Amino acid sequence: MGILIKNVDVLTQNSRRELLRGADVLIEGNKIEKIGNNIKEKAEFKINGKGKLAVPGLINTHTHTAMTLFRGYADDMRFWEAWPEKIWPAEKKVKAEDVRWGALLGCLEMVRSGTTCFLDNYFFMDETARAVKDSGMRANLAYGMIDLGDSAKRKKELKIGEKFVKDFHGKADGRISCSFSPHAPYTCSNELLLKAKGLSDKYGVLMQIHVSETRKEVFDSIKKCGKRPVEHLDSIGFLNNRVVAAHCVWVTKSEVRILRKRGVKVSYNPVSNMKLASGGVAPIPQMLENGVCVTFGTDGAVSNNSLSMLETMKVGALLQKAHLWDARVLNAQQALDFATRNGAGALCINAGSIEEGKLADIFLMDLKAPNLLPANSHVSNLVYASNPSNISHSIIDGKLIMEEGKILAVDEEKVFEGVQKVAGRIKEK
Amino acid sequence: MGILIKNVDVLTQNSRRELLRGADVLIEGNKIEKIGNNIKEKAEFKINGKGKLAVPGLINTHTHTAMTLFRGYADDMRFWEAWPEKIWPAEKKVKAEDVRWGALLGCLEMVRSGTTCFLDNYFFMDETARAVKDSGMRANLAYGMIDLGDSAKRKKELKIGEKFVKDFHGKADGRISCSFSPHAPYTCSNELLLKAKGLSDKYGVLMQIHVSETRKEVFDSIKKCGKRPVEHLDSIGFLNNRVVAAHCVWVTKSEVRILRKRGVKVSYNPVSNMKLASGGVAPIPQMLENGVCVTFGTDGAVSNNSLSMLETMKVGALLQKAHLWDARVLNAQQALDFATRNGAGALCINAGSIEEGKLADIFLMDLKAPNLLPANSHVSNLVYASNPSNISHSIIDGKLIMEEGKILAVDEEKVFEGVQKVAGRIKEK
Repeated sequence: MGILIKNVDVLTQNSRRELLRGADVLIEGNKIEKIGNNIKEKAEFKINGKGKLAVPGLINTHTHTAMTLFRGYADDMRFWEAWPEKIWPAEKKVKAEDVRWGALLGCLEMVRSGTTCFLDNYFFMDETARAVKDSGMRANLAYGMIDLGDSAKRKKELKIGEKFVKDFHGKADGRISCSFSPHAPYTCSNELLLKAKGLSDKYGVLMQIHVSETRKEVFDSIKKCGKRPVEHLDSIGFLNNRVVAAHCVWVTKSEVRILRKRGVKVSYNPVSNMKLASGGVAPIPQMLENGVCVTFGTDGAVSNNSLSMLETMKVGALLQKAHLWDARVLNAQQALDFATRNGAGALCINAGSIEEGKLADIFLMDLKAPNLLPANSHVSNLVYASNPSNISHSIIDGKLIMEEGKILAVDEEKVFEGVQKVAGRIKEK
Repeated sequence: MGILIKNVDVLTQNSRRELLRGADVLIEGNKIEKIGNNIKEKAEFKINGKGKLAVPGLINTHTHTAMTLFRGYADDMRFWEAWPEKIWPAEKKVKAEDVRWGALLGCLEMVRSGTTCFLDNYFFMDETARAVKDSGMRANLAYGMIDLGDSAKRKKELKIGEKFVKDFHGKADGRISCSFSPHAPYTCSNELLLKAKGLSDKYGVLMQIHVSETRKEVFDSIKKCGKRPVEHLDSIGFLNNRVVAAHCVWVTKSEVRILRKRGVKVSYNPVSNMKLASGGVAPIPQMLENGVCVTFGTDGAVSNNSLSMLETMKVGALLQKAHLWDARVLNAQQALDFATRNGAGALCINAGSIEEGKLADIFLMDLKAPNLLPANSHVSNLVYASNPSNISHSIIDGKLIMEEGKILAVDEEKVFEGVQKVAGRIKEK
């Protein structure tokens, strides 16, 4: 058993950010067993890595995978018009099984763009979990809870959220983890937030939440409770080092310090923030100065519309440079760190770098491509010049998921057919 | 002879922006001969277009193709440090033949990302012209002239610029056009600008120039002549409807009106402007309101680092939305228009849409891809969700340049080898 990659350049993303040239990587079970030269061990699959680059699988820390179903539904519209006019009516038509098709589609898109693990909150999550299981991906999933202050609704939401964690945490040979996700401070009562926190403590799992995405949210929060969203969450004791906070666009310096103090992980979603014109830009350099762990998310396909983390790394770096009038901020290596090491840290998984003993979540890029030559810098080319056409292989949890551009885990054609059928039904008046 | 594409969805980009479903497209010589259903004519090449989308070839109105050689050379550096420290020393080592390799590489990258035509200024342009000829692309090329006020240098530059136009304008069966390119108002004397204009009148060709890329440029211009760059160029009579002005980031409302009045075409380079942290954002909505023809450019690979117009369309739209806090500005259809119809208008070529009688510059996308499903909107998916992995075929000037991802016009491997050799030599101390 196992996979042996021969003669491959390895972007280790270890603590010294070493680049190994022409190394062999042996994978046994779901781990990286050995990295070296001339490894002689036998392996079931052998991959000729010559001319290829091995990269730690990218980790997408904020998405709603099944929303691929609504790709292109609400482009070029105001956020506060798009959802009520386009997305909520469409979501009302969504059946449980539809989510499975949408999530499978999203998993395929992510595999093809180098992502091996993602953090997701949405509804009908059992179906997303099934898609993760079938696609071979790794994911941390949560049922997204909203109570709008309604205690009956709250009870129901918590029940669904907890049942999901009980049913799926640790499933699919450990590829699926679960978390609790109260949607946002403006859609969740303090009671819901704290109950969710209590449950996350009980099960020892993460929490996901949307925070300070728009200026309106901050304005409303101040009006309602005299505090900005991060301040508010902190004041009720919600924040800790198992919280992944998505967006954090409109946070002040003192809120950045709170995030640091509580060990909150930030998911920076540059493409979504730009497309939805959230205004402002997440103060990433300030977060880094304060030692906050920053990661990257694509957000869902409605607000992006791609799930490519390659694109997100580039746009994330560009946005900071443009916003701060300084080409030096958020360099290529930092962007890659967000998408690998930091993502793994935020999701508490033993991945994010290619080192012995780490989970075998790796993708391979074909370096012989006009957009990746000359090979002046692999890191620069990966972050600023690559695209999914360069990705040839994906290995997740020690299993070969894509080989020379061919998806092995599921029948892609069947997924396409399933998705088109669902999309057609949802589109009908 | 000719090419017949059967049963293809066609994003015509005609004046009504029609989408044809399952149409046949017949190409004869270098033109689109006929679009219809069940075309029976015989053709040398027949392409099964089922499940594919035919799109007018994208037109990149600002690049320095051979600068692919320096991809990743000056990332995350200040503009005014990157060039003196990294690029100029490297350019000193560049021999004429090197430019051919760099330009060939850039052509391959552009073909693979849907671009069929580009506007380029650089040096050793005879070699770029050869690369264009060999790669099968269409291009408008100019020798980039700089005199810094030195009259001897000016004379020399004009001579090279004019010789290039005389030698190459209309060559490669008309695929190559030439233009005059005084580099920028801050590097060219009024004499050079006006001589270039005189020559462009004489030969009836375009002019290319960098304008108002940075705030420093505007500041220096005001200090030197009391006018902002566009005002200055207008005051000396340089501007007309054969000028393509790259960047135009720091232009005022009154300068936008001058651009409109003179019929100047703008090349908007969002990725480059963001990566170099030019500060500010080109006022595209204001340009559109005033009826200025806006197009897209990638700029060279040092300041991007990709030559993908797919990416540029998306980032260009995102940047406006983020900057203006309005998700409605620069919608997907407008972005596609910039990259097709407007680009063709700026370059004065009979292309930019798929209509009978137009030049046969077309690329095909494979719609069966996880990132392009569901097919809620082809335009949205193309602009916001596609990447080069979706592009299967490229037809330029009626010739098949790429077929199912295979480049037919040149031996790609040879180009890769050539480029690596050159890059290695340039990198040596």
